[in-house]
Amino acid sequence: MGSNTFGQLFRITTWGESHGKGIGVVIDGCPANLPLNDEDINRELEKRQPGKTPYTSPRGEKDEAVIYSGVFEGKTTGAPLSIIIHNKDADSSKYEPIKDLMRPGHANFTYLEKYGIFDYRGGGRSSARETACRVAAGAVAKKILAHFDIKLTAFICEIDGIAMKEPDFSSLEALRDKTYASPIFCPDETAAAAMMKAILEAKEAKDSLGGIIECAAINLPVGLGDPVYEKLEANLAKGMLSIPATKGFEIGSGFAAARMKGSEHNDAFITDDAGNIKTETNYAGGTLGGISTGMPLLFRVAFKPTSSIEKKQKTVDTEGRKKEFELPKGSRHDPCVTIRAVPIVEAMAALILTDAILINRAAKL
Amino acid sequence: MGSNTFGQLFRITTWGESHGKGIGVVIDGCPANLPLNDEDINRELEKRQPGKTPYTSPRGEKDEAVIYSGVFEGKTTGAPLSIIIHNKDADSSKYEPIKDLMRPGHANFTYLEKYGIFDYRGGGRSSARETACRVAAGAVAKKILAHFDIKLTAFICEIDGIAMKEPDFSSLEALRDKTYASPIFCPDETAAAAMMKAILEAKEAKDSLGGIIECAAINLPVGLGDPVYEKLEANLAKGMLSIPATKGFEIGSGFAAARMKGSEHNDAFITDDAGNIKTETNYAGGTLGGISTGMPLLFRVAFKPTSSIEKKQKTVDTEGRKKEFELPKGSRHDPCVTIRAVPIVEAMAALILTDAILINRAAKL
Amino acid sequence: MGSNTFGQLFRITTWGESHGKGIGVVIDGCPANLPLNDEDINRELEKRQPGKTPYTSPRGEKDEAVIYSGVFEGKTTGAPLSIIIHNKDADSSKYEPIKDLMRPGHANFTYLEKYGIFDYRGGGRSSARETACRVAAGAVAKKILAHFDIKLTAFICEIDGIAMKEPDFSSLEALRDKTYASPIFCPDETAAAAMMKAILEAKEAKDSLGGIIECAAINLPVGLGDPVYEKLEANLAKGMLSIPATKGFEIGSGFAAARMKGSEHNDAFITDDAGNIKTETNYAGGTLGGISTGMPLLFRVAFKPTSSIEKKQKTVDTEGRKKEFELPKGSRHDPCVTIRAVPIVEAMAALILTDAILINRAAKL
Amino acid sequence: MGSNTFGQLFRITTWGESHGKGIGVVIDGCPANLPLNDEDINRELEKRQPGKTPYTSPRGEKDEAVIYSGVFEGKTTGAPLSIIIHNKDADSSKYEPIKDLMRPGHANFTYLEKYGIFDYRGGGRSSARETACRVAAGAVAKKILAHFDIKLTAFICEIDGIAMKEPDFSSLEALRDKTYASPIFCPDETAAAAMMKAILEAKEAKDSLGGIIECAAINLPVGLGDPVYEKLEANLAKGMLSIPATKGFEIGSGFAAARMKGSEHNDAFITDDAGNIKTETNYAGGTLGGISTGMPLLFRVAFKPTSSIEKKQKTVDTEGRKKEFELPKGSRHDPCVTIRAVPIVEAMAALILTDAILINRAAKL
Repeated sequence: MGSNTFGQLFRITTWGESHGKGIGVVIDGCPANLPLNDEDINRELEKRQPGKTPYTSPRGEKDEAVIYSGVFEGKTTGAPLSIIIHNKDADSSKYEPIKDLMRPGHANFTYLEKYGIFDYRGGGRSSARETACRVAAGAVAKKILAHFDIKLTAFICEIDGIAMKEPDFSSLEALRDKTYASPIFCPDETAAAAMMKAILEAKEAKDSLGGIIECAAINLPVGLGDPVYEKLEANLAKGMLSIPATKGFEIGSGFAAARMKGSEHNDAFITDDAGNIKTETNYAGGTLGGISTGMPLLFRVAFKPTSSIEKKQKTVDTEGRKKEFELPKGSRHDPCVTIRAVPIVEAMAALILTDAILINRAAKL
Repeated sequence: MGSNTFGQLFRITTWGESHGKGIGVVIDGCPANLPLNDEDINRELEKRQPGKTPYTSPRGEKDEAVIYSGVFEGKTTGAPLSIIIHNKDADSSKYEPIKDLMRPGHANFTYLEKYGIFDYRGGGRSSARETACRVAAGAVAKKILAHFDIKLTAFICEIDGIAMKEPDFSSLEALRDKTYASPIFCPDETAAAAMMKAILEAKEAKDSLGGIIECAAINLPVGLGDPVYEKLEANLAKGMLSIPATKGFEIGSGFAAARMKGSEHNDAFITDDAGNIKTETNYAGGTLGGISTGMPLLFRVAFKPTSSIEKKQKTVDTEGRKKEFELPKGSRHDPCVTIRAVPIVEAMAALILTDAILINRAAKL
Repeated sequence: MGSNTFGQLFRITTWGESHGKGIGVVIDGCPANLPLNDEDINRELEKRQPGKTPYTSPRGEKDEAVIYSGVFEGKTTGAPLSIIIHNKDADSSKYEPIKDLMRPGHANFTYLEKYGIFDYRGGGRSSARETACRVAAGAVAKKILAHFDIKLTAFICEIDGIAMKEPDFSSLEALRDKTYASPIFCPDETAAAAMMKAILEAKEAKDSLGGIIECAAINLPVGLGDPVYEKLEANLAKGMLSIPATKGFEIGSGFAAARMKGSEHNDAFITDDAGNIKTETNYAGGTLGGISTGMPLLFRVAFKPTSSIEKKQKTVDTEGRKKEFELPKGSRHDPCVTIRAVPIVEAMAALILTDAILINRAAKL
Repeated sequence: MGSNTFGQLFRITTWGESHGKGIGVVIDGCPANLPLNDEDINRELEKRQPGKTPYTSPRGEKDEAVIYSGVFEGKTTGAPLSIIIHNKDADSSKYEPIKDLMRPGHANFTYLEKYGIFDYRGGGRSSARETACRVAAGAVAKKILAHFDIKLTAFICEIDGIAMKEPDFSSLEALRDKTYASPIFCPDETAAAAMMKAILEAKEAKDSLGGIIECAAINLPVGLGDPVYEKLEANLAKGMLSIPATKGFEIGSGFAAARMKGSEHNDAFITDDAGNIKTETNYAGGTLGGISTGMPLLFRVAFKPTSSIEKKQKTVDTEGRKKEFELPKGSRHDPCVTIRAVPIVEAMAALILTDAILINRAAKL
């Protein structure tokens, strides 16, 4: 079991609390002989760093990951990779006054009931800080995907009802470059401008916004994912819904499929110039029967608005008495967590695809 | 691993092809001393039986499940339950002519590429017939949920863009009764009438429709689900996306959350008359931090329109040559698979909740 | 979890009780395109059939396995293989009078305490009948091993203190042929004669004997097994100790290693004529660091004497009252279960090696 | 999968190499509210510290474990425990000259073949240094066992053919105290004296010795362990054979059972003064049908003589050329690794029993 573990053959186990000594991830099952160093990981971690624009939390934390094991002379050895990010000193005392209050939209109520104890400092284990470990592990997975020439990118496609125009998937590298050049990871500059305005307004109103992230992967071989319970989209759905603040997942046509007819939705099979069997359209979103078709993998993830808002909210305390909830002074939160979730979605997708590649090796004799 | 296995402590393994000798499920980890007989299972299986109305396939197959092991003197013993449904004789010869054609919206292309072989008779393992085993296992899980007084129901909430009105969750038994009294499992009679009309029109046009299923569970204890990668909604998302023809999953506010503000979306904590901590609203849909809050669990699953349609479609054969695809004479398909998926969604939810109950026992000393 | 499941990528799940409707095994993860039919399985099952000689139980049961799923046109498809052995009608009534007595050396006491219920007819799930499913699954695994030219055999090496002489491993086929030609599966005719005499004497005395089985596998590639917790010998040890009546496992030098010096025990590395690195001796028994060396894999398994004996024994009943225990009239038991365990040991070894082969594919990029 | 993970509900994942930055273990599934601090772990780690007597390696390394996560205000929170032991600076340069030589009895040959790369410094991941992490995790498990009043101890029972006399199990605390008071962890002073002499002689002769460890646990509830593949002894066997240098495992009567008669070996059931059902003898060693009986759990583990010896040995290099192997100057090795394995055996047993306790909670409704 292990609720802090994800994946089968390429498997991660994360640990650590927001305000503890540090956080980390152990990657078990990384194939040997993959070139890897700290910088490969820190380059990805930087993408979820806050504080660089007014659209994310002003916290200045810069995470530095260190590979503690599993690499020898610049290459993986097949041994588990232990990656550790030491926490900077954090002032946990400001959480004292609210430690007995149920935080609206937060997990302290359910953790307290489940475990009878809660590390309230900065949200402890329920903090989104854990996702830094996913990004670190995702950086390793991405190197493996690159080895197989698979390209992957996530981006903001909607915030506050403002949707970006249909993206151009012809070059996924270009799309990814545009994404990470945007302060809010949205490759459509016009839409991004409107989104940024909305975010600043929400921030001004001591409120927060939700949003939708889209993710695309190309050059997948046919055959990733397994029938019945290990369908590729089933694992993607699980991975995405394990990210804090997520409320929904859809692949290809998604919820819109519910309003389509079979004659529209069925992607016709054709043969491309190279003689490969493809589909003319891609409502399926890259899988059939839970197994990759070789067409682009396309899915979307819905995020709720950030739970931590500056507005006063009503709540109760651990004894059930009515109270007012107000964030401690100096709390710094993202007005729209969806933005910083872009590299997390990308990382989870990379982990799932890597695992599927390794598992697929056992399908035939 | 095992891609035909689902669950951790309450774990099912299914086997069997559409046109083979039979299908079955092994349930491992069912607690001992649960009263159980064949009839408990066949009562649930009957719900997904087709042929009773013009809204489902006219196939007359009546599944009869037999418990082969794990029950002694009317009670489970802790040993694995093996439940087998023998297949009725099926005429597989009609699939011969189309065995080399890629079926639009189907999995024969991906299975062939992945395994180099495909049991094309009735779709083999990729057939929705496998889901009868989930319903059978779900019947056992529901008996365990009933032991804990947990109530559960799924229903059609949208077909062809026709949405039912907000359901009344005050009595989940009443809602369930209304659901299964409806020929299309939709408890809102007015909406159901419009949906049925749309289905018959699609059928007439040799086409098919998609739809959305909603599922609700009440009386859950606080504490089901585990932090980080085994969040209750993550496992629900995986379970639902493992059902054939699904394209999306959302919990609580779902994709609509992306357009809400934090001050709207945060469910305020209150104390009810019995002194229990609850939330005033339930945008969360029954979980916080991946752990059940005790509020109703509410989620929705999107289904694509049935892939098997009577209209001619263009495709290619295994050699990549252009062909026309037409269903074999006498093929009988559902104009809207979403309908018969209602008991499947319910079964998967029951399996996941049962597993979570058993796992939750290990959270505290 | 699943205590009725064994293996990771090549994974079996067994079900069924001694006196129920039948027993069976689901094999998940068998690679596609392996030629397979019922006869392949029944040929192996025949080896553990009793009643052919005075050295095993006189029960006449002849098991006939039927493959219910996963094979199409004579080949595996990648879908789960469901193999079922229907039970012959058995008279369970004779177990009635002893159902409240604790059976010395048996599991009814622990099952009753653990589950609060026990299917006492023929031992229910605790019966060695379950091992027929292992032999059936092992038959599939052996076909995969044969594909990789790996040869495997188990044999009786000691009964009642009578040890066979050092076997000749130069041809494993010849050794296996000699083994299965012997009524007690011991390839050394002289030792076998003495063992048979001892067995008949024990039987005459209404008593039973234990014994030791040795197992050898050759042509293993270097690299099977994984470091730390998935060492090849660790999985062999688990698999062997999961067989009923086993009391010990040793690999290579085994317990004798405890009395050796390092300078004796260290197998010197040499290069053979083909230029391959080997070891001069093989005290290691075929692994180093838990990974196969390419040298013969050699291990031994100790079995206790059959618990079911005709002699009267003292015991207590479920209420703790002193009673005498006597087997029901017409009970038929093996005077030495070790004999019929030979194909079981072989089957478990085949399952573990097959799993290790599939897992090893993920070690390198 | 994950070959660096052990356990199901109480699950450890270890990482780190002998000469890397450090080693560590992540414990997932530790129940909440267990009092725990660094000292609890370091007290146990000290037991496997070398250098205190002439019977172990003279290395002065003193391991200091730090709990990085999962503890809040002195108690576990249900979050994963990350325990890290930083490595002291080690001079790896002395391994340079032997890096291309196959080390007799070591794993560098198999690692190189399996992964195509080997971290040869101090044995890398194949080093017994990994077992410090097991001892650290075992310290946590022992606190849980103590909560259930289960007592556990391992001790040396044989070295170089010198066996200790039958131990007195009437007080397991006293036996454990005697064990850890002995320089070689053997509670029988007379035997210990002879063993120590043998060890010094072997050391003088630049050679090494093997040995046997016995382990006992009392106060186990009836019901630990699961039928068929998760028998308690099966998991013990796997856990023990995963310890470096082990060659065999036996429970209760073990290999001696092979020479016993059923009438001798069957432990008669009796009722003790408190009215509990027990067995008169305990040849079973504490389990029946793989499930604990409540009688003392007793097993033994065989260790080969230390592979690293000062004597010159013949070997080949990576190219297969004949070479002489000699340990680098300043290498410091244990003349008998069995001694320092005592706390490791104890730790693995504690981990397995703890896991079984948590799993057993799901057996009944």
